[in-house]
Amino acid sequence: MAAPAPPAGPAAGAAPLAIGKLVVVGVGLIGGSCALALRANAAVTVREIVGVGRSRANLDDALARRIVDRVRTLDEPWGTELADADVVLVAAPVAQYTSLFRVIAAHAGQGTLVTDAGSTKSDVVATARSELGGMLARVVPAHPIAGSHHSGASAADATLYRGRTVIVTPLAENAPDAVARIEAVWRACGARVSTLDPALHDRILAAVSHLPHVIAHAYLAELAGRRDAASFLAYAGSGFRDFTRLGGSSPEVWRDITLANRHALLAEIAAFRDALDGVARLIDAGDAAALEALFARSRDARREWEATMSGKGP
Amino acid sequence: MAAPAPPAGPAAGAAPLAIGKLVVVGVGLIGGSCALALRANAAVTVREIVGVGRSRANLDDALARRIVDRVRTLDEPWGTELADADVVLVAAPVAQYTSLFRVIAAHAGQGTLVTDAGSTKSDVVATARSELGGMLARVVPAHPIAGSHHSGASAADATLYRGRTVIVTPLAENAPDAVARIEAVWRACGARVSTLDPALHDRILAAVSHLPHVIAHAYLAELAGRRDAASFLAYAGSGFRDFTRLGGSSPEVWRDITLANRHALLAEIAAFRDALDGVARLIDAGDAAALEALFARSRDARREWEATMSGKGP
Repeated sequence: MAAPAPPAGPAAGAAPLAIGKLVVVGVGLIGGSCALALRANAAVTVREIVGVGRSRANLDDALARRIVDRVRTLDEPWGTELADADVVLVAAPVAQYTSLFRVIAAHAGQGTLVTDAGSTKSDVVATARSELGGMLARVVPAHPIAGSHHSGASAADATLYRGRTVIVTPLAENAPDAVARIEAVWRACGARVSTLDPALHDRILAAVSHLPHVIAHAYLAELAGRRDAASFLAYAGSGFRDFTRLGGSSPEVWRDITLANRHALLAEIAAFRDALDGVARLIDAGDAAALEALFARSRDARREWEATMSGKGP
Repeated sequence: MAAPAPPAGPAAGAAPLAIGKLVVVGVGLIGGSCALALRANAAVTVREIVGVGRSRANLDDALARRIVDRVRTLDEPWGTELADADVVLVAAPVAQYTSLFRVIAAHAGQGTLVTDAGSTKSDVVATARSELGGMLARVVPAHPIAGSHHSGASAADATLYRGRTVIVTPLAENAPDAVARIEAVWRACGARVSTLDPALHDRILAAVSHLPHVIAHAYLAELAGRRDAASFLAYAGSGFRDFTRLGGSSPEVWRDITLANRHALLAEIAAFRDALDGVARLIDAGDAAALEALFARSRDARREWEATMSGKGP
């Protein structure tokens, strides 16, 4: 296995950037951290940040923490904020994109750029094509590979994107200066920007993120569903803790991700199943040499990845 | 799912304990940490600790760090150290037990107690029955649930067992005072002691430890074996890091564990496969409600485990 190629060029967080009005739809961990990072960057000027969201309580948190200057709930006529917006960041659950994009399509100004933070991209591109057809030159989908076990405006952190990768999946219709400007926004948050085709993005994330989540959830659900689960879990140690950490993730979010990326994910599950069956056959046959060789390959791959990635995320 | 029952009573590390001669066979992380913990415990007196091992360089490390007072390689007549030994701790790879037990059977004194630190127990009990038949009253198998990514005497740590669980799997032939004394040794290392039947030990460890190791190795080997592995691994993040940490473990050790515990492990692999197939069917069917419910069950099980185990290991 060759060493992983660096996913992106150097971060350019110090490049000057001026934004008039930024509208953040979904002021949670992801959207709120972007707003805080832009405010904290001395090279960036943002005249005004408007937060839009479902929950009044969360928007009040965002105001109290000065993440945003003004707020609108989704029940209010928030589209009126869009005509003079420079950038709209959609950081809401992907399941809400259709209705959000309809409001954006109806109200965005001639110069308004749109980006998002969804974990899957083929479906976002499809929704953009169906709902934002008149402004595709200015819609640049993105996926920041960053997260936390916490959520909401109270968890937002100006340093969340520092050293992390944001994958941008531009559309063929995108204006080059729109792509450059959206990339500059993410870089100004402290991220490295990498570009992928949406379908390849989804295949890669299915393998390195979505499959591990599904495995951790399936493993935990099976174990916890046993009558004698407690006597097993009482002996689980630090290895179990690490292995199952992804199983602590949000049921709603992962319901949406697994369904949005179902084709790539089912292919990954099948490939993993074949690999696991292969290991089971070696164990059943008592093939010590082949088992040791396989475990050495996986150990070496893990070490090489750790060495390559150390200190540079994502 | 009920909360896990506490696996063991309180640690009794401060109870007075006097050991004359302790022989540690395999002065690595596990054996060396036991020796250091006993030395560091003010309530324990150990007259002499003799280290036995394959590697002269590792034994020299153990001497230099004062983990042991004297050393013997396995090529030397180390059996002569056993006649006046109070306790022999076998902390070598399980694959070496047959030959080690033969030397112990030939040379152990009338009062010599034997314990071990192997990760599987049914096979150790079987080997003890075949090789240590004349002294089964004094052979008390054990499995300390503690470890580290490091190995060798240089990694030994007096605090390794603090707050951890040591599972003891006594034999029907054991003298009660032999079991009590071996349990006292492990408690003096700082551990909580829990008792299990060897077969149940192996079933439980297959589920909570051996299966996660096999999954992590199988997942990594499959991914790393792809032609385009590098472009996938470049986008792996912190979730991948946690999920695959067990794949960094020793190929030799895990070859031996998976084969020693093959029956219980193959049953666990089959149960997990069925669970994964079930999740794949829900994804394929687009059954959002059932997926969310399943992910919620696993998330809740993970949270409950974390809350129950927090601060008390293992």
